[in-house]
Amino acid sequence: MSAHVTATGYARFGRRPESLVELAAEAASHALEEVGRKPIDLLVVGNMLAGAVNATENLVSRVANRISVETAAGLRVEAASASGAAAFHAGVLAVESGQYDRVLVVAAEKMTDRPTPEVSAALAHSLHPTEQVAGATMPALAALVSQRYAQRYGVAPEVFDAVSCAARAAAVHNPYAQFQAAVTPEEVHNSRMVASPLRLLHCSAISDGAVAVVVERGHGPASVLGLGQAFEAMAVVDREDLTTFAATRSAAERAFRRANLGRHDVQLAELHDAFAPFLLIDVEDLGFARPGDAPGWFTGSRPEGSPVLNASGGILGRGHPVGASGLAEIADVVRQLTGRAGASQVDPRPTTGLAHSIGGLASHNFVTILGGNAP
Amino acid sequence: MSAHVTATGYARFGRRPESLVELAAEAASHALEEVGRKPIDLLVVGNMLAGAVNATENLVSRVANRISVETAAGLRVEAASASGAAAFHAGVLAVESGQYDRVLVVAAEKMTDRPTPEVSAALAHSLHPTEQVAGATMPALAALVSQRYAQRYGVAPEVFDAVSCAARAAAVHNPYAQFQAAVTPEEVHNSRMVASPLRLLHCSAISDGAVAVVVERGHGPASVLGLGQAFEAMAVVDREDLTTFAATRSAAERAFRRANLGRHDVQLAELHDAFAPFLLIDVEDLGFARPGDAPGWFTGSRPEGSPVLNASGGILGRGHPVGASGLAEIADVVRQLTGRAGASQVDPRPTTGLAHSIGGLASHNFVTILGGNAP
Repeated sequence: MSAHVTATGYARFGRRPESLVELAAEAASHALEEVGRKPIDLLVVGNMLAGAVNATENLVSRVANRISVETAAGLRVEAASASGAAAFHAGVLAVESGQYDRVLVVAAEKMTDRPTPEVSAALAHSLHPTEQVAGATMPALAALVSQRYAQRYGVAPEVFDAVSCAARAAAVHNPYAQFQAAVTPEEVHNSRMVASPLRLLHCSAISDGAVAVVVERGHGPASVLGLGQAFEAMAVVDREDLTTFAATRSAAERAFRRANLGRHDVQLAELHDAFAPFLLIDVEDLGFARPGDAPGWFTGSRPEGSPVLNASGGILGRGHPVGASGLAEIADVVRQLTGRAGASQVDPRPTTGLAHSIGGLASHNFVTILGGNAP
Repeated sequence: MSAHVTATGYARFGRRPESLVELAAEAASHALEEVGRKPIDLLVVGNMLAGAVNATENLVSRVANRISVETAAGLRVEAASASGAAAFHAGVLAVESGQYDRVLVVAAEKMTDRPTPEVSAALAHSLHPTEQVAGATMPALAALVSQRYAQRYGVAPEVFDAVSCAARAAAVHNPYAQFQAAVTPEEVHNSRMVASPLRLLHCSAISDGAVAVVVERGHGPASVLGLGQAFEAMAVVDREDLTTFAATRSAAERAFRRANLGRHDVQLAELHDAFAPFLLIDVEDLGFARPGDAPGWFTGSRPEGSPVLNASGGILGRGHPVGASGLAEIADVVRQLTGRAGASQVDPRPTTGLAHSIGGLASHNFVTILGGNAP
């Protein structure tokens, strides 16, 4: 593979007064500044809910007009809550095709345009129809998964609380994160029950925000070493095992094979923790721990050489503008690899990082491995 | 460029009882049959309105699950009424990147799930917000363009009637077209006024349907010779000239340059005629006629060597499931180039064809040149 990320830009996550297009433009502008406003020849926009929540179609034209890149080509990409990762994937393919030299990938979501119940309903439209008809929502199915995981491996609720606390503690150092205050285990434990065993502070927040990256041909300190994505049966009822996401396992296998790297090479990982227990499942699915061993990372000590997890605060701390999160994970890894993560910077600076994104209820997952500065 | 189309499949356009996903699966199944059900490694889905009209997000997972391609990767692409062309563009980039060998591109739309006024409102969300706020709809702005074009070049309403008649006459030979009956100039002239000068039979119909193609590396009788796309100012009020679409002109320039071909090389063209006068504008924007000369093609005779237009019936005859139309144009060109267009087949069989698609009110247009069997 021969593509690398040469710039990143953010529009802070949280409740924002700006429109979807303005948020996209804000993030894009920061990334374009970093490449000296050099012309781009392809604009890829990642977004999930524009049609259902923002009464906005033709989004790539809107963004292109707003940021004045009329000379470029464009694509809008959607893959539910992995839309940002999917857009990055499309941008990398475009560079690798040899047809485009400098691609701007922008991922944005504006969820507070509509009342939360409407947004939750739209999110549930990414589930299998048979489960939608049965009244399933994203947190309800996530609770089912979490319950089964806890039961199978004897995981105490305190472990999930610890995951949330770690996320919020890290987010304090990330100026683009929605949550800027840490929480105590007691606060997590006392937050209201959403769907047992998931309490409010185990769940990601409705959020607005945007992220942008520039992808160019060639190699650098943030080269795309491997990219993998995969599907799984959408209906949770059709899955053999609720305690693991097959789409993550397959995506990881593909990404590591393409990168020609092993799990021990990864020093930093940004994982999709839309619900606290998912972080544990992610760690196991990605091969960093054996099934059932990830809870130990939060109750005992982590194995020698294990990657730093979600230094950005993850989705629980950063906030979850759904279509933007997948690209935020990638941009956060890039900032770490290039030593520009500010107060979140991991020391020593990692040389290989992994970003992981979940689409829908883990029906379409993405793994991206970045690096290239290995000694 | 090194990609060619090895298969096509359709789900007939019109009012269909099947769901969006079933229509996509029907078209995909026909295309996969044509390649002997060989495994595909990337699924690209083109669609515009799933979120707003079909309460369906995460569409690529839905289609992947339905057609059992869990082993593939996937992307969903949206570019308003050019979504099908944009999806094809993404599929070609994927093949040219060297990362994917056999890509299935499916474009589908199911517009009759909701009452027409709701669908029209969703379509209007692809216009610039300042014009949406002023109450603009797609036919209203198309009427503005048509009025100005007629005025500038002194075009009689009968010319627009003739465009519609030609489309419907061609569609009679296309078993996948929504309209299977020809119309007389009188019928067009007597159809109700939608927005002057556009009457009902000058406008494309609300429609359901799907199209699929398989793209593979290498060359064949339907090679991708050139691909171009471009943006224009979204707000019609911001444009210098209403009688031409700058995005078509730029897209065509790029596509012809990449193909290293001239206008006279094109023997067959499938043009985006969502409104009858647009066909005339398309012919001029693509460089087949000088500005103001296209109406002469319908009142006098066509210049020697001019391409056959919309042998499929075009959007006026084929129907306009918006996200599918851009891929239908490409698939129709492929069938002509490979001699499989049945009763629509142009004789002698063309060796170079062009497909043209308009996104929104011509804010994001696509030109695809296919061929490769030149003597």
